Amino acid sequence: MLGEREVDVYGNTGLEEINRRLKTFGKDHGVIIEAAQSNSEGDLVTMIQKAKASFDALVINPAAFTHTSIAIRDALAAINIPIVEVHLSNIYQREEFRRRSLTAPVAKGIISGFGVESYLLGIRATIDLIS
Amino acid sequence: MLGEREVDVYGNTGLEEINRRLKTFGKDHGVIIEAAQSNSEGDLVTMIQKAKASFDALVINPAAFTHTSIAIRDALAAINIPIVEVHLSNIYQREEFRRRSLTAPVAKGIISGFGVESYLLGIRATIDLIS
Amino acid sequence: MLGEREVDVYGNTGLEEINRRLKTFGKDHGVIIEAAQSNSEGDLVTMIQKAKASFDALVINPAAFTHTSIAIRDALAAINIPIVEVHLSNIYQREEFRRRSLTAPVAKGIISGFGVESYLLGIRATIDLIS
Amino acid sequence: MLGEREVDVYGNTGLEEINRRLKTFGKDHGVIIEAAQSNSEGDLVTMIQKAKASFDALVINPAAFTHTSIAIRDALAAINIPIVEVHLSNIYQREEFRRRSLTAPVAKGIISGFGVESYLLGIRATIDLIS
Amino acid sequence: MLGEREVDVYGNTGLEEINRRLKTFGKDHGVIIEAAQSNSEGDLVTMIQKAKASFDALVINPAAFTHTSIAIRDALAAINIPIVEVHLSNIYQREEFRRRSLTAPVAKGIISGFGVESYLLGIRATIDLIS
Amino acid sequence: MLGEREVDVYGNTGLEEINRRLKTFGKDHGVIIEAAQSNSEGDLVTMIQKAKASFDALVINPAAFTHTSIAIRDALAAINIPIVEVHLSNIYQREEFRRRSLTAPVAKGIISGFGVESYLLGIRATIDLIS
Amino acid sequence: MLGEREVDVYGNTGLEEINRRLKTFGKDHGVIIEAAQSNSEGDLVTMIQKAKASFDALVINPAAFTHTSIAIRDALAAINIPIVEVHLSNIYQREEFRRRSLTAPVAKGIISGFGVESYLLGIRATIDLIS
Amino acid sequence: MLGEREVDVYGNTGLEEINRRLKTFGKDHGVIIEAAQSNSEGDLVTMIQKAKASFDALVINPAAFTHTSIAIRDALAAINIPIVEVHLSNIYQREEFRRRSLTAPVAKGIISGFGVESYLLGIRATIDLIS
Amino acid sequence: MLGEREVDVYGNTGLEEINRRLKTFGKDHGVIIEAAQSNSEGDLVTMIQKAKASFDALVINPAAFTHTSIAIRDALAAINIPIVEVHLSNIYQREEFRRRSLTAPVAKGIISGFGVESYLLGIRATIDLIS
Amino acid sequence: MLGEREVDVYGNTGLEEINRRLKTFGKDHGVIIEAAQSNSEGDLVTMIQKAKASFDALVINPAAFTHTSIAIRDALAAINIPIVEVHLSNIYQREEFRRRSLTAPVAKGIISGFGVESYLLGIRATIDLIS
Amino acid sequence: MLGEREVDVYGNTGLEEINRRLKTFGKDHGVIIEAAQSNSEGDLVTMIQKAKASFDALVINPAAFTHTSIAIRDALAAINIPIVEVHLSNIYQREEFRRRSLTAPVAKGIISGFGVESYLLGIRATIDLIS
Amino acid sequence: MLGEREVDVYGNTGLEEINRRLKTFGKDHGVIIEAAQSNSEGDLVTMIQKAKASFDALVINPAAFTHTSIAIRDALAAINIPIVEVHLSNIYQREEFRRRSLTAPVAKGIISGFGVESYLLGIRATIDLIS
Repeated sequence: MLGEREVDVYGNTGLEEINRRLKTFGKDHGVIIEAAQSNSEGDLVTMIQKAKASFDALVINPAAFTHTSIAIRDALAAINIPIVEVHLSNIYQREEFRRRSLTAPVAKGIISGFGVESYLLGIRATIDLIS
Repeated sequence: MLGEREVDVYGNTGLEEINRRLKTFGKDHGVIIEAAQSNSEGDLVTMIQKAKASFDALVINPAAFTHTSIAIRDALAAINIPIVEVHLSNIYQREEFRRRSLTAPVAKGIISGFGVESYLLGIRATIDLIS
Repeated sequence: MLGEREVDVYGNTGLEEINRRLKTFGKDHGVIIEAAQSNSEGDLVTMIQKAKASFDALVINPAAFTHTSIAIRDALAAINIPIVEVHLSNIYQREEFRRRSLTAPVAKGIISGFGVESYLLGIRATIDLIS
Repeated sequence: MLGEREVDVYGNTGLEEINRRLKTFGKDHGVIIEAAQSNSEGDLVTMIQKAKASFDALVINPAAFTHTSIAIRDALAAINIPIVEVHLSNIYQREEFRRRSLTAPVAKGIISGFGVESYLLGIRATIDLIS
Repeated sequence: MLGEREVDVYGNTGLEEINRRLKTFGKDHGVIIEAAQSNSEGDLVTMIQKAKASFDALVINPAAFTHTSIAIRDALAAINIPIVEVHLSNIYQREEFRRRSLTAPVAKGIISGFGVESYLLGIRATIDLIS
Repeated sequence: MLGEREVDVYGNTGLEEINRRLKTFGKDHGVIIEAAQSNSEGDLVTMIQKAKASFDALVINPAAFTHTSIAIRDALAAINIPIVEVHLSNIYQREEFRRRSLTAPVAKGIISGFGVESYLLGIRATIDLIS
Repeated sequence: MLGEREVDVYGNTGLEEINRRLKTFGKDHGVIIEAAQSNSEGDLVTMIQKAKASFDALVINPAAFTHTSIAIRDALAAINIPIVEVHLSNIYQREEFRRRSLTAPVAKGIISGFGVESYLLGIRATIDLIS
Repeated sequence: MLGEREVDVYGNTGLEEINRRLKTFGKDHGVIIEAAQSNSEGDLVTMIQKAKASFDALVINPAAFTHTSIAIRDALAAINIPIVEVHLSNIYQREEFRRRSLTAPVAKGIISGFGVESYLLGIRATIDLIS
Repeated sequence: MLGEREVDVYGNTGLEEINRRLKTFGKDHGVIIEAAQSNSEGDLVTMIQKAKASFDALVINPAAFTHTSIAIRDALAAINIPIVEVHLSNIYQREEFRRRSLTAPVAKGIISGFGVESYLLGIRATIDLIS
Repeated sequence: MLGEREVDVYGNTGLEEINRRLKTFGKDHGVIIEAAQSNSEGDLVTMIQKAKASFDALVINPAAFTHTSIAIRDALAAINIPIVEVHLSNIYQREEFRRRSLTAPVAKGIISGFGVESYLLGIRATIDLIS
Repeated sequence: MLGEREVDVYGNTGLEEINRRLKTFGKDHGVIIEAAQSNSEGDLVTMIQKAKASFDALVINPAAFTHTSIAIRDALAAINIPIVEVHLSNIYQREEFRRRSLTAPVAKGIISGFGVESYLLGIRATIDLIS
Repeated sequence: MLGEREVDVYGNTGLEEINRRLKTFGKDHGVIIEAAQSNSEGDLVTMIQKAKASFDALVINPAAFTHTSIAIRDALAAINIPIVEVHLSNIYQREEFRRRSLTAPVAKGIISGFGVESYLLGIRATIDLIS
């Protein structure tokens, strides 16, 4: 039994569609996926710290915190389940300050630029990492 | 009918295994995959320029050229089929100079850190992009 | 009917006086002004996301977050009402790291250095922008 | 009796309209406003040096010199009447080299991004500073 | 009567042991020590703002926020009780981005690298500063 | 039996007072403390190289050499007794060039900003490290 | 009928020879060339602003102002006739600070390193641009 | 008898047209022009090394290699015929990394931004340099 | 017969006193000193270009232009009489951007920090350089 | 039996003399030396990849590629025979961009500045490393 | 009675001549000048610390230590007699790393580029500073 | 008759072995080798200044001073016998700050990374340079 969680999404637009696609994907592949979202860096840190107990892997889109949050980096580094960082947009096509990722060095890998598909590719990658 | 090409791989080790996995993957998903590899920046540029005529998408691992080749960037920018940049290792976990990607800004997206699985995820992403 | 909100103030000192002056100003100019303040980056992001539904413009003093918060920048960029960034002090007269504003590029304009008057000038500017 | 001067404007376009609006504004608020403009850094320095004798405050748009002129900065720093720096455009939305302001640290405050309204807001701010 | 508070600790591991050692230390030296911890930058800012009313000194381990939070720096700068910054690890032995401390310039001093002992040394230092 | 040495002090002012406080401290805690001071980088290197043979730990205030001396860093890295770096002033409150410490990465920890008390806290820390 | 103007030359040496060659060149190619020179940044700005009314193209050697004058850049950007930037010397063979050109990004093209011939090549280029 | 060679062109588009215009130009001016193109840095180095024996001058568009190839720079520096660097586009109007030219310091001059006309201007310049 | 000129002074304060001291100094040492001052970079360039014909040496205080004017640097580099750069204040004790001198590399030497005495020391130095 | 190869030389001048000296040196010391040279980065990568099978050590002069080629660095890092990097000139006496060596960190050591003698010293070093 | 000391000279060449000129100068102006020289940073620090007791002013040529020694800077900052920094050569005409002066910010002024005359000008300046 | 001197060694470990190997090497090659070592930058400067009189060449391992001492650089630049800089370790494999060599630009060449063998290779190189 595999569990994943979507910690964050890029704004609220399409949040429901993402959840619906994740649910479908989970059913198709026999894994349980739980999604969560927060605007608060502190809440994200707490969610990550708790993820270790209940989930086999973590797919995270740290959004703006990718580039600024050492706290989230430290939380990710402290759990020992596979982590995949995903981004809706290609961070290399945006402002210079979005090319630095503080969180990527503590993730297993990074998937960036495929819209909602980034999440599904991220979940596939974690399935491959665990099995 | 979808065609992909693996332009480069990380050294020779496992090259055959990658090809075998790609072939299997292509058969399973009904797409034709062609792989190519070269140590020469000039040959890679030429291959990219020709890719446009024969393939629907391009999955490329520019390896060391990711960080140094404006020529490959320019070649990629000049073709109008979807491009996915993949890396065997997580480039954010390596030397500082490997964090700069000259090619990623002209690709649709980037997948980095999942070993050979990076290639398969890249091909999945291109299938999603084309259909 | 115009609505403005003061998202943040510089410390607690004088917060009441600012509110009293804002109320008087609103009465004099026939606009409804609502003020809000928070120490939490996440709460500020949420307030900004909700501002779009109820207000015609936003006057924001992002204080310390001006220089560090890409999350607030992204929230501001996602709403389409006029935004004016204000600062009590002149940010160019302070430490080097306060000269960088992550939020100013997504605001219509910036007013900095006039103490509480910065807020009133900011509200005037938004009245001009809307009418 | 308050006197202000507009030392520079952004190109010639609309210069007359600005002057007309300034004149109206002055009449409405009972202040005498004098406007001046020059393409010459040296002339601007001389104007600033003389401003101290005849005016109670200075509203200046140093335009391109904002980012390059230490001479204007030194002239501004040497007079002891309130100075407000204004810009027609939001300097944070433009080229990187326009984000550095050599003059802002010696001004009381800065107003940027509101077009001609920036001048009027600047004059309001100086009225508030003097009274 | 002296009061100290531990605002943050490095993860949860050993949190209880730290509290036990702090309690013992307080009893031995006749001071009242109160410890608090939060993952939220906003909560830390609020705690610091309130500390001034109830405590004679503040020993703080800003953890990841040391390097990113201007908000915490501003909160610390606004209270006028002695502040000592402590770190479990030696921040000079870690990543380059951890060598910058935004908070240290507004603290009285810094103690870094002695594990839990850093807290006890910090409390000793504040006792010395107050008496 | 514990031995410490004060390698350097900040100027000559108060040197005697420091020595008197160190002597008292040593007597109170049953440790033998030896202090030494030199203006010469070469002498400091030689003292450090010899410290290993006679002392159980080293408390060093490298003063100006903190920021410039790779030779002292290399000498400290070559001995295997615990090293604590201390500073009278808070190096984070001074010139930019004093924030870089070449020696701190090879010390166990750093204590900065408590005046002469920095030395006593440093000695306490070494006692804790050895026992 | 084509008009060009030489705004600046490198020192006075040979100024007359340049003018004689320009005159000959103009006669040979049936274009009217007017040359002007000034040491004053402000005068150059004014000349550029007026050029639009009387000339079909502008060949400018901004000399030292190439590297320092945002005012000249802004003046050039505001006129809509073709602009060619020329330099007597190869700016890439000189001091580091001469490699930055503030004016080149708003010119159509740049010709550098051919002595007086740079002017003639620049005029040829503008003839080609206009016809 | 003068010989020139076009070492590289920007992509394949219009390559034939360039060649036709070069041929016409050569016939009109009584010079023999030979054009060559390669995607390979190594081949370009070899061509440059051989150019010295057969040609009187070299017009080169190093394209992407302008900004990355020290090998081509060294090859150019080792031959003693006049070299003119040309670019189809204005390199100052493009990405920051295209403003650095490794090859320009070893060329006689640079012509950038006039499309195919850049080549013809470059050949004119070499004719002037040789005669 | 020696001629010197004071091209610029730091503001107007004391300008007469400087002139009086220079006159006295000249009379005492049998040299003719001529002083000139301008706020205009262009005028300073013209004065420097003319200085060569009438004077044996040049003592210049480029004030703010020291740090920004390549035009003045180029003018100084083009005359072949001894040049001494002087500053009233010690430029190393001021803002970072005042530590860069564009003009000093083309002067014989620099004297900075002695107030009006800087001028007299500068003239002495030129007397020594000429004789 | 020891084998070395000279992968690259600095231009063609003296290539034969180098080979003759290498042959003589090999004969004198009982080692087989094979020399190879290429202008192509890709060919050098291929040569390095093959070197592992036939040789006991590698002496390489990466010339211009020293400073730009991550591909050659990666190829060198992937073979496990001793590597010595040599340079004809002292790279510290040349342009700033030649001081960075991408290849040196993966070599055993570096010898730079002794002309052809650098090669012979490099071969001596490898003999010492192998035996 | 005035005392000066020459702490360092540039190499040994001409050291005697400097001393002879200093002696003559002292006799002519009725001041006692003592010269000292050392290759050792530590000795220079000690000399500076002792200078305060015996001399009215200090003329120092810190030579290479100008750019590297925070220890000498701190020693100079700790004495309260006038300090003049002198250099034989113009430090702005040399390597980039010689343009930074760690000692100049704590000196009254700086004189650079006049050879031995720099010393005499420095002594004149101190006489002016004391009287 | 050839004389060399080893000015410094990396720590004391193996110092005797180095001396023994140097002695043997000298006997084998008919050269007189004198070795010296010091922790003091000043002593090293003095040794270098004296080396010129007694030796034909200098092999120096400036150890930590390689990266910090302009004084040693200046001393080396002032003697006109061949200088070879050697390092036990490969300075390119260590911390970033060890890649800068202040002394290498004034040496004939550099040999780095071969342990004690670096000294012997350095002496061989000087024999080659002198003969």
